[in-house]
Amino acid sequence: MANIPFPGLMNERPLLLSEFVERAERFFPNQEVISFRGHERTVRTMGETVERVRRLASSLQRLGVGIGDRVATFSWNTQEHLELYLAVPAMGAVLHPINIRVHSEEIRFIVEHAGDKVAFIDGSLNDRFPELDSLACEVVIGSGGRAGALDYERLIAEGDPNFEFPVIPENSAAGMCYTSGTTGTPKGVVYSHRSTVLHTLLQSLPDFYAIAERDTVLPIVPMFHANAWGLPYACFMTGARLVLPGENSSPERLAQIIADERVTFAAAVPTIWHGIAYLDDIPDLSSLRDVIAGGAPISEALMRRFDEVGLPAVIGFGMTECNPLIGVGRPPARLAPDSPEWMSARLAQGRPFPLIGIRTDESVGGEMMLTGNTIASAYYDAPEQNQDRFTEDGWMRTGDIITMDEDGVIRLVDRTKDLVKSGGEWISSVELENAIVAHPDVREATVVAVPNAQWGERPYAFVTRVEGSTLSGPELSAFLEESVPRWWLPDHIEFVPEIAKTSIGKLDKKAMRLKAAVLARSVVG
Amino acid sequence: MANIPFPGLMNERPLLLSEFVERAERFFPNQEVISFRGHERTVRTMGETVERVRRLASSLQRLGVGIGDRVATFSWNTQEHLELYLAVPAMGAVLHPINIRVHSEEIRFIVEHAGDKVAFIDGSLNDRFPELDSLACEVVIGSGGRAGALDYERLIAEGDPNFEFPVIPENSAAGMCYTSGTTGTPKGVVYSHRSTVLHTLLQSLPDFYAIAERDTVLPIVPMFHANAWGLPYACFMTGARLVLPGENSSPERLAQIIADERVTFAAAVPTIWHGIAYLDDIPDLSSLRDVIAGGAPISEALMRRFDEVGLPAVIGFGMTECNPLIGVGRPPARLAPDSPEWMSARLAQGRPFPLIGIRTDESVGGEMMLTGNTIASAYYDAPEQNQDRFTEDGWMRTGDIITMDEDGVIRLVDRTKDLVKSGGEWISSVELENAIVAHPDVREATVVAVPNAQWGERPYAFVTRVEGSTLSGPELSAFLEESVPRWWLPDHIEFVPEIAKTSIGKLDKKAMRLKAAVLARSVVG
Repeated sequence: MANIPFPGLMNERPLLLSEFVERAERFFPNQEVISFRGHERTVRTMGETVERVRRLASSLQRLGVGIGDRVATFSWNTQEHLELYLAVPAMGAVLHPINIRVHSEEIRFIVEHAGDKVAFIDGSLNDRFPELDSLACEVVIGSGGRAGALDYERLIAEGDPNFEFPVIPENSAAGMCYTSGTTGTPKGVVYSHRSTVLHTLLQSLPDFYAIAERDTVLPIVPMFHANAWGLPYACFMTGARLVLPGENSSPERLAQIIADERVTFAAAVPTIWHGIAYLDDIPDLSSLRDVIAGGAPISEALMRRFDEVGLPAVIGFGMTECNPLIGVGRPPARLAPDSPEWMSARLAQGRPFPLIGIRTDESVGGEMMLTGNTIASAYYDAPEQNQDRFTEDGWMRTGDIITMDEDGVIRLVDRTKDLVKSGGEWISSVELENAIVAHPDVREATVVAVPNAQWGERPYAFVTRVEGSTLSGPELSAFLEESVPRWWLPDHIEFVPEIAKTSIGKLDKKAMRLKAAVLARSVVG
Repeated sequence: MANIPFPGLMNERPLLLSEFVERAERFFPNQEVISFRGHERTVRTMGETVERVRRLASSLQRLGVGIGDRVATFSWNTQEHLELYLAVPAMGAVLHPINIRVHSEEIRFIVEHAGDKVAFIDGSLNDRFPELDSLACEVVIGSGGRAGALDYERLIAEGDPNFEFPVIPENSAAGMCYTSGTTGTPKGVVYSHRSTVLHTLLQSLPDFYAIAERDTVLPIVPMFHANAWGLPYACFMTGARLVLPGENSSPERLAQIIADERVTFAAAVPTIWHGIAYLDDIPDLSSLRDVIAGGAPISEALMRRFDEVGLPAVIGFGMTECNPLIGVGRPPARLAPDSPEWMSARLAQGRPFPLIGIRTDESVGGEMMLTGNTIASAYYDAPEQNQDRFTEDGWMRTGDIITMDEDGVIRLVDRTKDLVKSGGEWISSVELENAIVAHPDVREATVVAVPNAQWGERPYAFVTRVEGSTLSGPELSAFLEESVPRWWLPDHIEFVPEIAKTSIGKLDKKAMRLKAAVLARSVVG
C-alpha cells in the first residue's frame, strides 16, 4: 500500500475536530447554544462558547493534561459538558464521558482501565462519583463543593482566550466510550479524530440526519452515551442551533422545551417519544422535521401514533463501536409514501452510511459484519474480547442478526446471543417480541431463552400491559398463533408491571434472562 | 506528526472512489441514469451501469492500463463518459478529461504533458482530436470510425462483469484536469482519491448542494471541465437520479429536458440560465429546487428575473484547483428572507465548505488564500508556476481579491490581475462591472485595465446592450455616477454585439484586454 505510482497533488491536512470548533467561531459566531439546568435557561453564542473552549483548553494544559491524556466527564447535557466535548479533543487530549447511571465499582474500573488523568464532575452528581486515588485531579462544575476539587468556572476565568489548538495526526484518539454492555466487563472504544470527522460529515448528509444551519437540534440522548450520537460535533460543523436539556428528562418538560425553542430535530430512545406521544396535553410540536428514535425497535402501532400526534419519527441505528451511527430508517426514495413497503422500511434499520462496508456471516445465522473508518478495529486493552469480535482482515462482528432486501435496507432480526435454539431450529426473539407488541393491549415485551431439557432452549416472554388491560396469557397466545409458527409460542408469558431497563434506557435482557431462569427454576450458564 | 501518544482504535480503510461505485450497485441498483444523444434518450439503471463499469475496468487492464496510468477522455456528458468517470479511478488509473473546445496544439501539449496512455474519443468529436504519436491506444465511443482505434462497445462486451476493484492508497491520483486559464500555458491539477471522496461528502451536505436519493440531477456543466463540479460522484454516492444532456446546449432543449425529466437540481454557467430565463415560452420548471449558477457573477436584476420565472438560482463558487467547489452562495440562516442583506448574500460567493482553511493576504489587496484536503498543493510538473502559487506552509494563492463579512460570507471583489491601479489607488474591475450591469439596458459587461501615461492604468469597459436598446456612453456614465466614485468612471465605453467567451463560457478578459489595448492604441505588456 505504500508504493504510489502517481500520487495526487492535493493538500493533506489532517482531519481534526478542532476544525469544527474554528469553523463555528469564524462562520457562526452569533448562533445560539441554549442550556438548561432545571427551568433555568442560559444562552451563549457559539462565538462566546469557543472563547470559553480556548480558555478551558489552556487551563487543561496548565493542569498538565497533554496530547493523548484521557479526561473523564460525569455530567448531564449542559453548556459545560459541550465545552469539554470541544476543548478536550481540540487540545489533543481524549474526551472520556462516563455513564452517570452505573455503579461506583464500575466507574472505578472504567476510570482505572482508561487511565483517566482528570475528571470533570457536575456538582449535582457529586454523590454518585466515588473517591478515586488514580485521578491526578478533579474539577467540579456548578455548585456542590468537593474536597480538594478545582472549580470549573475558575479554570475558564484563568484560561487564555487566544489558546491555539495543536496540529496532531488524524488517527490520534479524540474520544473514548465504554460500552455498558448487557454482558461481561465494560469494553472501551477509542474514537480517532479521522473517524469522528468523517462520522460528522456522514451523519449530516441529507439522507441521514440532514443537519443544516437552519436547524435547532435537541440531543435528549445523553452526552455520557456514545458522543450523544454525534450531535454536538454536527452542530458546530454546520452552525445549527443547539439546545441542551440538562437533567430534564420527563416527557412533559421535553415536549415543552421542543415547543418553546421551536426545535426542528431531536434524538432520543423510543421510550421518550412514547411518553410524549401519550401525554394528555401535547404542546405544539409543529417545528419538528425529524425525531430520531434509536436504541430499541418500534412497533407499527407506535409509529402510527407518532404520525397522529405530529412526531415525525425516524429510526436511528448504531452502536458504541460505530462512533456510534450506522444509518437511519428512511425508506428508499422509490417507495410510494404510505405504501405497505414504505411503512415496513420505516420500521427497519435503513441503509448504512457511505464508506461503511457491510456483509453478513451466514454460518452464524446472518450476523452483520462491518468495516470502515467509523467502525472500531479493536477494544482498548482487551486482547481476549478483541479475538471474538474483530477479524484479522479488518471486519467487526456486531452480534446482530440481520437481513438486507434488494435496496439494501437492513432489518434487525435478533442478537446472536438472544436467538432461541429450540429443537435444533432458530427462533428469533426479536420477531417474537414484535408479534407480541403488535397486540393493542401490550406496551412492552421482551423474550429470552430458558434452558429446557427436551428442546435445549425455549422462549420465555415478559410483557407489560397498557393501563386497565386484563389481557391473559392464553388470549395473547391465541393472538400470536395468527402471526408466528405454533412451535414459536412462548412456554411462559409473565405479565409484569415493568421490564428492567439498562442505564441507557434499553430493555435489559441480561436482567430478564436471569429473572426467567429463576422463575423457570432453571440454571442459566 | 508521526508520534501518536494514544492512537484511536478505528478501522482506517482508504477513502477511494470505488466505494461509491460499489455503494450504488448494492443500495441503488434500480435507480436510473438517463443519457441523451440529441433527441435520442437512453435509460440504464445504476446496477447495469456498474456492470458495464466493471467490464470496462477489466478491459482497460487487459489493454495494459495499470495503477497510476493516465486515461484521456474527449467527450460530451454521456452514459459512456460517466462509465469512464467511474471505471478509470475505480481500477486505480487516472481519469483525464480534456476540454473539447481547445485547439489541437493545446490538446497535443496537454496529452503529452500529462503522459496519457490511452484516449477515449467520442465519434462525433473525431475531427477535433489530433493524431498523437504519444498515445499507446485510442478508443472511439459511438459511431464515427477512426483509423486504428478500438471500439468502446466491444471493450464493454469483452470485459469481465465480475472485475474486482483494487485497494490502493487514498492519496493515489484519481483524476487530472488542466486549467484552461486565461493566461499562460495550461497547468495540470491532480486530484487524489482522498480529496475527491471528501469533496463528494462536503458538496452533498444540506447547506451546499444537498444531494439526496430523491433528487434528479442534471449536470449541464461539461464533464470535460473540473469533474463536472463533482456531480457524477455525488449521484453515485447518494443514489440520486442522473440526467446527462449529451451535446444538447440550447436553452430551449435544456429547459425541455428539465421539464420532461422533472429535474430537481441542475448546474451550469449563468449564460445558460440567462438564456432559459428569457425564452419566449418557458416550460414547466416547478420540479427544480436549486439551480447552481457558477463561473461568473450575477446581477441583482438577473437574480430577480430568475425568481420571477421559477429558476431557484444559487451561486456556485469554485476553481479547478479546488476539486472544484469552494462553496455556494446560500445566505446565512439568520438573515430574513427578502431582506436587503439576504439578497446581497445571495449575490455573493457564500461560505466555504467545512475542512477548507481560508485567509486573506492583505499585502496584495486581500487575496484569498486556501488550504485543506480539497485544495491543490501543487501543479503537475510545473516548478516555476508552483513557486508563485503555493506557499511553503501549504496555502494556495487564488488570485481572487475577496472580502469576508461578520458571518464569513465571501464576496469576490476582483482578480489580482484585473485590479486597475489608477494614480496609485485600486479600482475593482468587478465592482465596476456590477455597477454597469445594474443598468436595465445592459446585458453583459467586462472592464479591463489599459495603460495610461498620466495615471498608470485606467478602466476600459466593453458592454453589450439588451435587444432594441439605444443606451449611449454618456447616458451609462451618468447612471454610474450614482453608484461609484467619479474617478472610477471608465475612460472608454465600447458597445459591442458580443463579449468574447473562454472555452468554458466565462467572459474572456484576456481577449478583451488585448482588444482594448488595440482600440486604445496602446501596448499591453
